[in-house]
Amino acid sequence: MKSIELAHGSGGRMMQQLIADLFLQAFDNPWLAEQEDQARLGLSELTGKGDRLAFSTDSYVIDPLFFPGGDIGKLAVCGTVNDIAVSGAQPRWLSCGFILEEGLPLVTLERVVTSMAQTARDAGVSIVTGDTKVVPRGAVDKLFINTAGLGAIPAGLSWGAAQIDVGDVLIVSGTLGDHGATILNLREQLGLDGDLASDCAPLCTLIAPLVGISGVKALRDATRGGVNAVLHEFAAASHCGMEIHESQLPLSPAVRGVCELLGLDALNFANEGKLLIAASAEAAPAVVAALQRHPLGERAAIIGIVTEKPGVRMNGLYGVRRTLELPHAEPLPRIC
Amino acid sequence: MKSIELAHGSGGRMMQQLIADLFLQAFDNPWLAEQEDQARLGLSELTGKGDRLAFSTDSYVIDPLFFPGGDIGKLAVCGTVNDIAVSGAQPRWLSCGFILEEGLPLVTLERVVTSMAQTARDAGVSIVTGDTKVVPRGAVDKLFINTAGLGAIPAGLSWGAAQIDVGDVLIVSGTLGDHGATILNLREQLGLDGDLASDCAPLCTLIAPLVGISGVKALRDATRGGVNAVLHEFAAASHCGMEIHESQLPLSPAVRGVCELLGLDALNFANEGKLLIAASAEAAPAVVAALQRHPLGERAAIIGIVTEKPGVRMNGLYGVRRTLELPHAEPLPRIC
Repeated sequence: MKSIELAHGSGGRMMQQLIADLFLQAFDNPWLAEQEDQARLGLSELTGKGDRLAFSTDSYVIDPLFFPGGDIGKLAVCGTVNDIAVSGAQPRWLSCGFILEEGLPLVTLERVVTSMAQTARDAGVSIVTGDTKVVPRGAVDKLFINTAGLGAIPAGLSWGAAQIDVGDVLIVSGTLGDHGATILNLREQLGLDGDLASDCAPLCTLIAPLVGISGVKALRDATRGGVNAVLHEFAAASHCGMEIHESQLPLSPAVRGVCELLGLDALNFANEGKLLIAASAEAAPAVVAALQRHPLGERAAIIGIVTEKPGVRMNGLYGVRRTLELPHAEPLPRIC
Repeated sequence: MKSIELAHGSGGRMMQQLIADLFLQAFDNPWLAEQEDQARLGLSELTGKGDRLAFSTDSYVIDPLFFPGGDIGKLAVCGTVNDIAVSGAQPRWLSCGFILEEGLPLVTLERVVTSMAQTARDAGVSIVTGDTKVVPRGAVDKLFINTAGLGAIPAGLSWGAAQIDVGDVLIVSGTLGDHGATILNLREQLGLDGDLASDCAPLCTLIAPLVGISGVKALRDATRGGVNAVLHEFAAASHCGMEIHESQLPLSPAVRGVCELLGLDALNFANEGKLLIAASAEAAPAVVAALQRHPLGERAAIIGIVTEKPGVRMNGLYGVRRTLELPHAEPLPRIC
């Protein structure tokens, strides 16, 4: 079986072949095909869409590389696309850096690259510039990916956590914790049945209709640290409190099962295709309705409200109100 | 001694502290300080400088992390800044993704981040968005960095290897192979004395005066694969031949010593602060003069010419002409 050699990252003939045979074909677009040291992108394509550039990056180190609902390649596109999209920008261009371990089966890389290419098409973005490094066995575990992304933020739109105010409503776009519970089940070999799948998805088309609704204050995709981490970010940036209701949290039966089995809280689990949104009370019904019209937002729900009293609190199923601390750490490493 | 823990990458409190105490302070700028999921950058700042966006990325996996003349942080800024600058764009904004090994001494990270911040200031760029992942011991070797960068290409400028034509002149901006020879000496413990140092440097101010010289055809920074790899890229893109003269190659005595000791060719060594430039015969003297006026270009030299006959050839010191093949691989991995 063919595998990655150090020479695939050396700047010599084998690297050029890998680029030509795999990356250029899979990511097929005119910018990448130029093969200069940088992609050259028409600025007018951005200025026609907005007045500010949204620029974001993430590295992806998830273990295992493949999981129900996705793989590291799909994740590397969705994660950065979503970090752009929550600004209200339409994601347009991505960069991509691979760090490969010597000996990685070539079929593994091909499967990841094919998945990235498909996800990029689904999200309407082009992977226009890239880099490949190969390190000796043991210097990296199999395969890491970095992506950085660009899009234009529509003029006049200023979604952000600092806009949040007392009386605003907190909305999630669907069930919580699916990604985190799926990886936990695989990694800890909990042996739960086939109902668990990551929610990994590009959220651009779910977010786009919200741009037209006035009263939307802030969006975040609730990845590492889960919805709880975003609630704390919202609280810190707005100097307000966040109060949610446990009974209103959408959870799949499988995720509920994992949480009960392990005594963990789905609010702390990573998601890869879920939004936490703050909107004015007037705008909230329109936001929920817009989300629910989209297949990825069918289970959108109002989960709480912004209060004057600082802190993050949850009203429990049995009427007990408790403070939600931001955990010291997430339940497990290499979740994304 | 304090060291990096998994919790520093988990999305929880320890990660927020690391961001606040280290990254926000070192990279200090208003875009990063907003702490949204994406930097929001005024497009007018780009459209005032050019009509196309230059967008590039590289991952940095160099071993060792610190070396004479630089470190992985300086390299991570210079490498991406230079990939932007060779388009003629003025580099403006960088993203930065860290992948850290659990147990990495915090002082090591602080030293790298301080060096990145200083190099970014020197290069006139701001690090405006970032990401930190921590992986368990053994899943990565100490510390990897990815940067992606942005700048605007002046309207009307179209430097690129496809512009190269027969009769053009090939120019290097200084001595060859300093970075590669320095890392080789460290890694293979050749024990050569203190004259070896990496040429790692941001080249923006060296390149800027070339924008005003008509007849400049293409620039590349000769990193992995060295000047030889760029000669092959120029040959492939232009369908011309590249013919150089060994006697005209600028080499430091220390690099010449490494090459003679090991029987290697400095043309294949990586550089991190050297350009290969193709320019018309008419423009060449002005290009060399402009380079030599800059401290980083004092040893700029014409090394050859573009020919009709395809291939890359070198006229040797003793009058023997030979074809330069693109090596299968570079002498050593993790050079950048």
